[in-house]
Amino acid sequence: MAESLVPETHVLAIASHVTSGYVGNTMATFCMQTLGCEVSAIHTVNYSNHVGYRRFKGRKSQPEELAELWDGLKNARLDGFDVLLSGYCPSSATAEQVGRIARELKSRSRTKPGSFFWVLDPVMGDNGRIYVAEDTVPVYKSLLKDADLILPNQFEAELLSEVKIHDLASMKRAITKLHKDYRVPHVIITSIRLPATSSNTPIQVEEDLSASAKLTIIGSTATDDMEPRLFRITVDALPVFFSGTGDMFASLMVARLRQAAQDADVLGRASWRSPDDVQATDLPLAKAAEKVLASMHAVLKDTAAHYDAATERLKAEQDGALNEGKGEEAEAEKATQRHLSLTRAAEVRVVRNIPVLLSPPDMECFKAQHVTIHENHG
Amino acid sequence: MAESLVPETHVLAIASHVTSGYVGNTMATFCMQTLGCEVSAIHTVNYSNHVGYRRFKGRKSQPEELAELWDGLKNARLDGFDVLLSGYCPSSATAEQVGRIARELKSRSRTKPGSFFWVLDPVMGDNGRIYVAEDTVPVYKSLLKDADLILPNQFEAELLSEVKIHDLASMKRAITKLHKDYRVPHVIITSIRLPATSSNTPIQVEEDLSASAKLTIIGSTATDDMEPRLFRITVDALPVFFSGTGDMFASLMVARLRQAAQDADVLGRASWRSPDDVQATDLPLAKAAEKVLASMHAVLKDTAAHYDAATERLKAEQDGALNEGKGEEAEAEKATQRHLSLTRAAEVRVVRNIPVLLSPPDMECFKAQHVTIHENHG
Repeated sequence: MAESLVPETHVLAIASHVTSGYVGNTMATFCMQTLGCEVSAIHTVNYSNHVGYRRFKGRKSQPEELAELWDGLKNARLDGFDVLLSGYCPSSATAEQVGRIARELKSRSRTKPGSFFWVLDPVMGDNGRIYVAEDTVPVYKSLLKDADLILPNQFEAELLSEVKIHDLASMKRAITKLHKDYRVPHVIITSIRLPATSSNTPIQVEEDLSASAKLTIIGSTATDDMEPRLFRITVDALPVFFSGTGDMFASLMVARLRQAAQDADVLGRASWRSPDDVQATDLPLAKAAEKVLASMHAVLKDTAAHYDAATERLKAEQDGALNEGKGEEAEAEKATQRHLSLTRAAEVRVVRNIPVLLSPPDMECFKAQHVTIHENHG
Repeated sequence: MAESLVPETHVLAIASHVTSGYVGNTMATFCMQTLGCEVSAIHTVNYSNHVGYRRFKGRKSQPEELAELWDGLKNARLDGFDVLLSGYCPSSATAEQVGRIARELKSRSRTKPGSFFWVLDPVMGDNGRIYVAEDTVPVYKSLLKDADLILPNQFEAELLSEVKIHDLASMKRAITKLHKDYRVPHVIITSIRLPATSSNTPIQVEEDLSASAKLTIIGSTATDDMEPRLFRITVDALPVFFSGTGDMFASLMVARLRQAAQDADVLGRASWRSPDDVQATDLPLAKAAEKVLASMHAVLKDTAAHYDAATERLKAEQDGALNEGKGEEAEAEKATQRHLSLTRAAEVRVVRNIPVLLSPPDMECFKAQHVTIHENHG
């Protein structure tokens, strides 16, 4: 199993913490540790569970608390990180504090190219809905110039690039803008719903969770001229809504990208960028994403099976309790309890699936493909 | 690898959190997750690193914050725990709050024996030195009656039992008192330094970190009459001071004891207690401890090797920097930097050693043995 471990990597992970379940740092820490990374976690919130339950308690960390822990690490000389992974920030002030830490780490690496790498997950919203304060958007834009890899979903990519994404051509324009205007060397746009074959075909953004639905990621590592090198990987979507999959993707990418960059011998290059002669589908970014999606798909398939079993059990219980309280209040309470049970059943079964995290199965189904676009100058 | 996983177990873990390194919940969460447990962590402190560095920053959680997270879990129906593992509490008020949570969980299990199990690590001090507020001792004493397994070191066992432990006979008296007067069914006393063959021979408590030093644990599961069934396991001590090994021991015990209790078919018995005809060395407690110590020894041996390499590197660096600043201040700073480097090098390499956590090696060296004592009625 030792050969599955990534090179020794010290990661500073700044994101949310929940007591129960797997989102934010609670998800990311375990995934990266399982692949052998040393993870130092600073929590931006400290909640009982994720907000998808609609009931949760706990508190947000203040930006000063993040600063204090960072100072503590520096004082004890524990601040030598290879990678920063930053996720959900509950306020623009927290995002700014994360930016200060990132810039400090980045500035030290100026004389030693590749010695520090920032994976920034600009968590702002999804499916056209923003769920952070509006003033967080310009803060994230200001942070981009120091990030090495960003992992926005389609909506977040639109917010950052100010390009409305409705087909592959506009997708390419958005990524090109992130490369050229914001100087981000690596971009992966996640959670894209689009037809299997497409060029100017509109992208489906509606929630299509049927069995035949597909999910696509599109990634790119810029050339020296900041031109995109686009690849895509399309996988079958599972008919369950999982929380924490963005954090799972980001954290597994940290480990697998470091490994792929080592394999490609680019760890000593600024931002681990591949020379211009490397094709899109041969990029370490693409190689890493293939492994990550293969692992994730296996874990989520197992979770979906358990979710289905829980749904069946719940149905049997509710059928057996037909004579219980009726009326609006009783119905509402029943709906709430059902929602809580199913939300819990959808918690990603990551700790029961270590083998597929270490050895991604069915790799042939997750091959990165070139993206060909016939530009529509309309 | 699936066969290494323990039965599905939901653990509530209440202990300290550090950003960097492995103590408290940062150690315990990873160890239990690796063995397949679902872990919900509530942090009693949130520090940058452990206090052994002598430099650290961060804050203690208030008892109300623990209560709030616990309320959040109850509201979202995420409070169905099989096991509570509680560790370091920064104040007696926090220990009392942990007790309230434990009693609530315990009271629900009255009608369903074995459905809840509390592993209490009464962290108070070591080697004759108490490092929590004095008023924590009576609080821990008041908590014991609801605990299923306690894991004091020798000094903590003395504080709780009020028996001065200087030989095996007094060790037995202390454990008997914890069984009979405090109604604790399972006890393991850790970090005992005593000669390999002994009965009334005094126990060595001084810091003997030579290569030939031994470390012993002595455990017992009470019979129906609350008489002790004593076993011991003695292992070679490693000549490095590690932090977090108590948390590692406690958390691996949670997973392995649950597995051993299932194997012995006692999960449905109150406090997972074995029938009276089970011999000390056949107890699930003994079987679990054997696996835990075998895993720990392998991880610590690897850590010690890395520690030695770090010591060598540091020596070479300091030899090469002979012309640097002299004088008292420079010397003090050099000593501080050396202390920080070596403390970091002694951080347990748990994430790089998952295979030995899953498959404890050299099990034959960690066999539990009977403890025979010729009572000294003096």
